[in-house]
Amino acid sequence: MRDLLPDEIELRDATAATILGVYRAYGFRRVETPALESIQLLTRGEGGENEKLIFKVLKRGEKLDLTRAAGEADLADLGLRFDLTVPLARYYAHNHARLPRPLKAVQIGPVWRAERPQKGRYRQFTQCDIDILGLRSWVAEVELILATTDALTALGLKDLVVRLNDRRVLVGLARRSGFDPSRYDSVFIALDKLDKVDWPGVSKDLESAGHPRSAISRLRELLSTAGRDEAVARPATPGSGTGSRLDEMRQRLGEHADEEAFTALGAVLRAVRDEGGGRFEITFDPTLVRGMSYYTGPIFEIASSAFPSSIAGGGRYDELIGKILGQDVPASGFSIGFERVVSILMEGAGRAARPQKRIAMIFGEDRDDLAAVLPAARRLRAEGHSVSLELRGKKLGGQLAALTAQGFDGFAVFDGSERPAVRWFEERRATPGQGEES
Amino acid sequence: MRDLLPDEIELRDATAATILGVYRAYGFRRVETPALESIQLLTRGEGGENEKLIFKVLKRGEKLDLTRAAGEADLADLGLRFDLTVPLARYYAHNHARLPRPLKAVQIGPVWRAERPQKGRYRQFTQCDIDILGLRSWVAEVELILATTDALTALGLKDLVVRLNDRRVLVGLARRSGFDPSRYDSVFIALDKLDKVDWPGVSKDLESAGHPRSAISRLRELLSTAGRDEAVARPATPGSGTGSRLDEMRQRLGEHADEEAFTALGAVLRAVRDEGGGRFEITFDPTLVRGMSYYTGPIFEIASSAFPSSIAGGGRYDELIGKILGQDVPASGFSIGFERVVSILMEGAGRAARPQKRIAMIFGEDRDDLAAVLPAARRLRAEGHSVSLELRGKKLGGQLAALTAQGFDGFAVFDGSERPAVRWFEERRATPGQGEES
Repeated sequence: MRDLLPDEIELRDATAATILGVYRAYGFRRVETPALESIQLLTRGEGGENEKLIFKVLKRGEKLDLTRAAGEADLADLGLRFDLTVPLARYYAHNHARLPRPLKAVQIGPVWRAERPQKGRYRQFTQCDIDILGLRSWVAEVELILATTDALTALGLKDLVVRLNDRRVLVGLARRSGFDPSRYDSVFIALDKLDKVDWPGVSKDLESAGHPRSAISRLRELLSTAGRDEAVARPATPGSGTGSRLDEMRQRLGEHADEEAFTALGAVLRAVRDEGGGRFEITFDPTLVRGMSYYTGPIFEIASSAFPSSIAGGGRYDELIGKILGQDVPASGFSIGFERVVSILMEGAGRAARPQKRIAMIFGEDRDDLAAVLPAARRLRAEGHSVSLELRGKKLGGQLAALTAQGFDGFAVFDGSERPAVRWFEERRATPGQGEES
Repeated sequence: MRDLLPDEIELRDATAATILGVYRAYGFRRVETPALESIQLLTRGEGGENEKLIFKVLKRGEKLDLTRAAGEADLADLGLRFDLTVPLARYYAHNHARLPRPLKAVQIGPVWRAERPQKGRYRQFTQCDIDILGLRSWVAEVELILATTDALTALGLKDLVVRLNDRRVLVGLARRSGFDPSRYDSVFIALDKLDKVDWPGVSKDLESAGHPRSAISRLRELLSTAGRDEAVARPATPGSGTGSRLDEMRQRLGEHADEEAFTALGAVLRAVRDEGGGRFEITFDPTLVRGMSYYTGPIFEIASSAFPSSIAGGGRYDELIGKILGQDVPASGFSIGFERVVSILMEGAGRAARPQKRIAMIFGEDRDDLAAVLPAARRLRAEGHSVSLELRGKKLGGQLAALTAQGFDGFAVFDGSERPAVRWFEERRATPGQGEES
């Protein structure tokens, strides 16, 4: 875990405000769940590997009986949430009678994972999810994708590429290739590495896992582009993943093609492409695999030229809420990698992004300046500026340099001689490169 | 703990944004610390009774050795923060080299206390604090009070009364009355109940605690207003707590009056009163006691006619950071009772406060409406509205009624007959009382 310093928090706050503003414009409403959930909920198997990383909270008072405790299960009753999806499913199950249906929810908040500390990974970090609960139609995916590309565009991210696939297409591929139906998950895990290790690596992984060579070679054929026997590759050039590739895959899968899945993917591609115009690229990519096992339908990711891996991902999970509520509730969601986005924006962030001027008013406590300083500060604040009162230090020059380094845009120095004189030191800010060292 | 529903979260978000906006205008900058701190920090004695209410986090992996664990101390290494002040002191101690001095910090975030569940009290709740670290001058208190009254006024709270006292005045009162110096804390705890039990109750408490009658009676005399032998009462009428009351107290305490404290209080009263104009009341109240033992100087509270108890409180704590850092750092802070303020605003909250219109666009998935719906939604969003796509239900009338109950301000229904016709159902919103039942 780590402390956040003011410059970074201000960027994070502004980022969150921009994202929330766009999602609100799309009719999503804020949902908030507590940080702590019951251990039972968090360890019921929907969280995959993350369930091993739960911070567990000690029972309190009489409930904690050390003499009878045989293991962790007897010691802890609560845990810190490791994602926002499992708590949202619990939230909907508990509150659905008071919530609109469909519910369009946006969540932003911290999650915790007890990972070994490593560079760029923190044990407390922020997630930002939107979910549409109670809507079975592909219209949900259209909204999720349009809203999220709009949000990322509003943050200034460029060259967005949306990749779209469907769990049912992956299952069709595995079935048509002839893999053992009980071992599809292992096929998908190997395929998921395609963008890191290329096809020879995936093929080797599948062989080591004991899958038949005939199935592996058939999978390669099915994934080769444009019917030619070329290397399996993710669609790289704009337009290569158009609807025609979708139609081709439908034909290749033959009787193993899930008609509902292909119809939905086609409708999503068309609607998003018509509305998205040239603002971003969307492409069907049959090699896209999303990690979580709870996905049941369309899955999707967004990449930006500014970052090597994806910056947002999501999919449909029609069965997760049913496992808690006892009745099926269709659901689909999209999660922005908030920490990744912030790290991208941090690199490009200049002070230019700040609309508000930061002004320091410098005066002496022992003089009678305050009666002049306070009304002047009030007027500047009313104009939208941030005004900080600063007591005059021993050396004014050094103090001004320090304040400039802190990012102040201007100064007013009250010298208290007669009527307080206001002098401005704007020229420090006018010199390019000055004051950027903080 | 509890789930928050969209209507309440939107009010909470707007409240936080208003408060943060005012504090930023005063030059305060956001600080954020992790939710988890080390158990050592949280249990070092600065948190008073709150330390009994810590949610403790189980050690992980090899560190957790049940066979050797003799008690809770062997099982937990982290805890959820119970306030924002102790973590801020740790934050400043760790990061002071990278932080401006003075640091004007604003924090808003959740804290956790393992209290027994009761009405209106939650085990996770939000605190909102501002603190000025590294400034010994009474100018800090002037800024804290002006910024906080401005923030509360911006939220629409009326008839604000600031009560101001000083720990050193309380000590002077106890000394002048002749209480046992080792038992001043017990005197202050009894005095703190004055607004609940009146003087006879306080007097009885002091007697039961074994304090001498002579001291109790002397304390009553010192606290009686205007030199007359009337009942001890908190200043109730405007102007009754003016500087003259401060001067009178200084004289009554004689050699036990802390000159520095009285000078600072006088300067704060004058500066705040001159600048605050008629916007709020500020009054010296020698009966004000703030609970936390770490206060060392001025202490203050704000009450509003809208709420029976105080809605913000704070004080100077010059020694807390030094206990962690090993070198003294003067500090003073003000905390807004965020949950109280939200509960006040909830009662008065109407839809009028929402500037953005919420519009539902209703269409059929099976028709080809989407190509018309999406550009229309985009235009309305660009105008600042929130537009939610809604699939047409079986009965339009019932669907519109449900959406109205959810708080939608307007509807566009695409009937797909020829060119999509847009019909507006604004009249539902025009009828007073309609749609307010949600």
